[in-house]
Amino acid sequence: MGKDAHLKALEGLKEVKGVEIGTHTSVEELVAGLRGCAFGAGRLAKAVDIYEEMLNEETTKFLGVAGALVPAGMRSILAELVRERYVDVVVTTGANLVHDIIEALGEHHYMSGGVAAANAVRSVDDSWLRDQGIDRIYDVVVHDEAFAHLEDFLRGVFEQLDRKRYSIRELLTAIGENLSDRNSILRCAVDSDVPVFCPAIADSMIGLHSWIYKQTGSLVVDAFDDMKELIDLFCEAKRTGAIILGGGVPKNFIFQSALIAPRAEGKEGLDFAIQITTKTPEDGSLSGATLEEAKSWGKIGGKAKAVTLYCDATIALPIIVAAVRERIERKN
Amino acid sequence: MGKDAHLKALEGLKEVKGVEIGTHTSVEELVAGLRGCAFGAGRLAKAVDIYEEMLNEETTKFLGVAGALVPAGMRSILAELVRERYVDVVVTTGANLVHDIIEALGEHHYMSGGVAAANAVRSVDDSWLRDQGIDRIYDVVVHDEAFAHLEDFLRGVFEQLDRKRYSIRELLTAIGENLSDRNSILRCAVDSDVPVFCPAIADSMIGLHSWIYKQTGSLVVDAFDDMKELIDLFCEAKRTGAIILGGGVPKNFIFQSALIAPRAEGKEGLDFAIQITTKTPEDGSLSGATLEEAKSWGKIGGKAKAVTLYCDATIALPIIVAAVRERIERKN
Amino acid sequence: MGKDAHLKALEGLKEVKGVEIGTHTSVEELVAGLRGCAFGAGRLAKAVDIYEEMLNEETTKFLGVAGALVPAGMRSILAELVRERYVDVVVTTGANLVHDIIEALGEHHYMSGGVAAANAVRSVDDSWLRDQGIDRIYDVVVHDEAFAHLEDFLRGVFEQLDRKRYSIRELLTAIGENLSDRNSILRCAVDSDVPVFCPAIADSMIGLHSWIYKQTGSLVVDAFDDMKELIDLFCEAKRTGAIILGGGVPKNFIFQSALIAPRAEGKEGLDFAIQITTKTPEDGSLSGATLEEAKSWGKIGGKAKAVTLYCDATIALPIIVAAVRERIERKN
Amino acid sequence: MGKDAHLKALEGLKEVKGVEIGTHTSVEELVAGLRGCAFGAGRLAKAVDIYEEMLNEETTKFLGVAGALVPAGMRSILAELVRERYVDVVVTTGANLVHDIIEALGEHHYMSGGVAAANAVRSVDDSWLRDQGIDRIYDVVVHDEAFAHLEDFLRGVFEQLDRKRYSIRELLTAIGENLSDRNSILRCAVDSDVPVFCPAIADSMIGLHSWIYKQTGSLVVDAFDDMKELIDLFCEAKRTGAIILGGGVPKNFIFQSALIAPRAEGKEGLDFAIQITTKTPEDGSLSGATLEEAKSWGKIGGKAKAVTLYCDATIALPIIVAAVRERIERKN
Repeated sequence: MGKDAHLKALEGLKEVKGVEIGTHTSVEELVAGLRGCAFGAGRLAKAVDIYEEMLNEETTKFLGVAGALVPAGMRSILAELVRERYVDVVVTTGANLVHDIIEALGEHHYMSGGVAAANAVRSVDDSWLRDQGIDRIYDVVVHDEAFAHLEDFLRGVFEQLDRKRYSIRELLTAIGENLSDRNSILRCAVDSDVPVFCPAIADSMIGLHSWIYKQTGSLVVDAFDDMKELIDLFCEAKRTGAIILGGGVPKNFIFQSALIAPRAEGKEGLDFAIQITTKTPEDGSLSGATLEEAKSWGKIGGKAKAVTLYCDATIALPIIVAAVRERIERKN
Repeated sequence: MGKDAHLKALEGLKEVKGVEIGTHTSVEELVAGLRGCAFGAGRLAKAVDIYEEMLNEETTKFLGVAGALVPAGMRSILAELVRERYVDVVVTTGANLVHDIIEALGEHHYMSGGVAAANAVRSVDDSWLRDQGIDRIYDVVVHDEAFAHLEDFLRGVFEQLDRKRYSIRELLTAIGENLSDRNSILRCAVDSDVPVFCPAIADSMIGLHSWIYKQTGSLVVDAFDDMKELIDLFCEAKRTGAIILGGGVPKNFIFQSALIAPRAEGKEGLDFAIQITTKTPEDGSLSGATLEEAKSWGKIGGKAKAVTLYCDATIALPIIVAAVRERIERKN
Repeated sequence: MGKDAHLKALEGLKEVKGVEIGTHTSVEELVAGLRGCAFGAGRLAKAVDIYEEMLNEETTKFLGVAGALVPAGMRSILAELVRERYVDVVVTTGANLVHDIIEALGEHHYMSGGVAAANAVRSVDDSWLRDQGIDRIYDVVVHDEAFAHLEDFLRGVFEQLDRKRYSIRELLTAIGENLSDRNSILRCAVDSDVPVFCPAIADSMIGLHSWIYKQTGSLVVDAFDDMKELIDLFCEAKRTGAIILGGGVPKNFIFQSALIAPRAEGKEGLDFAIQITTKTPEDGSLSGATLEEAKSWGKIGGKAKAVTLYCDATIALPIIVAAVRERIERKN
Repeated sequence: MGKDAHLKALEGLKEVKGVEIGTHTSVEELVAGLRGCAFGAGRLAKAVDIYEEMLNEETTKFLGVAGALVPAGMRSILAELVRERYVDVVVTTGANLVHDIIEALGEHHYMSGGVAAANAVRSVDDSWLRDQGIDRIYDVVVHDEAFAHLEDFLRGVFEQLDRKRYSIRELLTAIGENLSDRNSILRCAVDSDVPVFCPAIADSMIGLHSWIYKQTGSLVVDAFDDMKELIDLFCEAKRTGAIILGGGVPKNFIFQSALIAPRAEGKEGLDFAIQITTKTPEDGSLSGATLEEAKSWGKIGGKAKAVTLYCDATIALPIIVAAVRERIERKN
């Protein structure tokens, strides 16, 4: 093949441009420098660009949260995103709310590495932890006592409820109103008028204590009432964007609402989507499904700006938030 | 180090024994031959041994199902497990029930590879699929028309409901009663008196159509009512065992019930657990959490027989079921 | 969309057909039953079909071996594949050869789970293992003494070498000739005239001991001499097929030879390829690269029959070998 | 359990402290803020702390490079690490050297996404790419013409070689001396006196062209000659540290040298180790093996400071380098 054919085949393509690291680089500068890179680096840069566009355009931003992000130390960032309306709607697993409430009540999560060190054992032993009343979440531990504290708090909240029937979102609002910690995600959500949805709430300690309370008190929480509110948020939005941390039920619940909602409007699917996950598509699970696959369903629009970033969310989220905040604040 | 010290250090350890492949090997013979192996091979053999013990002892067997196992072709096996009481309780994602109903209604899932071939395109293009009304699940496709069929069916079921309030399990039983396909998981569950739980049902097409029906009809499905029934199953069980396919909400919902239930009884956690997953623990998600971690919580008993098998469930499940069936039938 | 359009869109597609488990199922029957399935199950069936075709047609079969398959218990199967010419050429990491030799010398690998049990500790502690002279490979352990035994053996082999310069393949043949264990992969390779290549041999204990020997003795092993022999095997082959277990250097070394070899012949790339790996493509590594990507390079022919099976090779390999053996023996 | 027991069980443990994102955050500030976090975030912070300590103490720093980091855009960072002696020794796969040379010759890698766009096709089709002479590496492409250019260059280098026998390291130095691009990793290595080892060089285009040259010219490259030089570097080092990007042969080659070298000295294993990988340990491969496992072998010292960061290296590397550079420069 001649030289000309060679150049012609590559016509219009963008070269990979390497990143160079300067001195005292800001996170934004680093991420901007990754724009010419491929693999995860290029996807990270693209995620920030898409998020920036979501923030500059009039976009309703849905945040899906799965994985134990609060125990890992992401609570402040998530609370900040809600407080400053970097996101407008939260769909989460129950566990992250449980962990958020526990910290709001003054309890803590601890590094598990210290357990071994503090007790002169070489590695963490789960049966030994059980004997100590310590529960493990990967490299984090929390004490049973924290859950006893949670139980007392939730019972207090449930006893104050004055209506007979609640949607899950309404129940979470009632809980948030009873938290005084301004760094709580649930409290920030109440203060900032950001609805929090948790379709699988039964699958959490909040669910457990709701059920225990129902044994003697009266409380009906409808499994489907939230759907109207979430779908309406899609219907009313000018543009819609999703930031999916970790897959699971929150991912699908946002996507299925995006799918069903716009039909009445002539629009189809999300306009923006950022997916941060460590799950790959090869086993066919929804958590690992590509955003391309979501286009076949109409969950994401055919012309949407979308990127999947294969990365631990505890690494990617702080970087993305730091970078996009710098861009937004620079502009203001 | 002398030879003696060498032998002493290894005293009591089991040698890895390689597997050899004979002629016309039955699945059970193959799996038994893997007992001396390590890595995934040894874990597969251990999973079958644990399952066999669960079936030989008087054990209430909980099956957790996440991931699109029905579209992948695992529907018959799952139905068979339910029909023949190889499992006693099912906790599932909504999607697998949707796919089960669709097939019960005569609709089909198709291999996506054929789409490209049949249309003379070289690879699957999701935007093109969208134009054709075809929805993709990894390497499987299904047509929108199947969901229209589902909608008609569910509306018919909902219109027959004669009570005002249902638990999710009761709603699923009502759906199952209306399916005539004896290969349906939901139908088999009704016939075999196996309760099916789906805590995140809102996050599925069944949830969507329930919500649509509620716009005009009357239907209250309580998010927490199921918990009592599930926890009671743990309380009443002599021994308990879990088979977890793929993590997600079903895994945690079974584990949290195991955690909370036995307190009244002095027992703690599951006696047996088999986890089949492609998710590893490194990102701290519950789906990937080890069964050791579950012991720290008391979800699994300190002396439980437990194994995690890192494998696509569509590969592991048929092998495990074939092997354990041969053992049980040989015994009878 | 009308019913007709619906059917038209699906015309020519294959339905997913669920697998059903019979009584006393042979491995071959099980795998055949997975042919109608998708995800990993369908890929497993396809892998067996492709391997069967490779065995029925006149095909030179290249086996790539990475990952600690011998310690995991796969040594007998690998030896069997070589002995019975189910493969014609082996390209491997050095570690598997080291483990093979160790076992041939009468040393063993042991299950690490037993270490904790035998020493009344609850979990395996690597610093403690170090104190005992025990080395860990995931859930397998081996004693330092085995490597001392290896060193003695290799020194004996090197001292007998009568030429000044060897290719890596020739050195491995010399080692295999000195092993009397008929279950050794290296010994079987000598007996069956199956060449064994190990391009990264320096990265293994064989490399270490070769280097130690060279300090005092004379031994030149050329890094590139093997390439001619391997490329010639491609050039002379009527058809070529690769079975890749686990990626790494063996995968690329086979693929690059396939790429370079056929240019003189007008053929391009492998005719058959089966890749069994747990590595997915998302981080851009060669180990995880898809076989489609390999087609862009011409490493695999555009019309090759190829499948990637995402699975622990210690699970997939015994199943595939058992199934394909049954088919071949049934035919004979 | 009483309150006191609760507090006692947690005594000495470190709380997880959430990260907060300020305005115009430098990468170093962000990473320092992650120190109190768990999961990947905490590990990222720990990796930077360990690297900083390696740079502050008199440590010989070994860099292992696997995965197509150069095509992804990491070439400048790698070159910078070598040029400024942030690393002292490089062990790499051949592919990264091939990609480095290609770019040094003025050829480029391109984003594959643009291929589809530029040719009005919707997704990348590998057979179509083959027809265009374009080779794909995940989401990067490179033209066959670049490899023709590489061939001409290498032949020129080989023709100048004036000795009969070379170690692989010496051959790479000769290549580096012929590159004029000061951003080339190989050129920087020559200029900064950083040895580059590539034990599996046969498994690369450099290997291919070496073999082609040997058909007519005279060139002996010994497979084991490098080992002495690498092991001597360990023996002479005051302290040793490894930064492992992606596993593979480079990881093991560094580790085995660390294992064998210090025996004469009474020291054992590496003093520092940072492993950045997307491979987890569950399939027993060396690439995914934990650093704890390496301690059982003595590859890493029992008291070494070590961390594994599960992350795409193209994301982690720029962050770590930017953060550690800021710390070092601030100190100077």
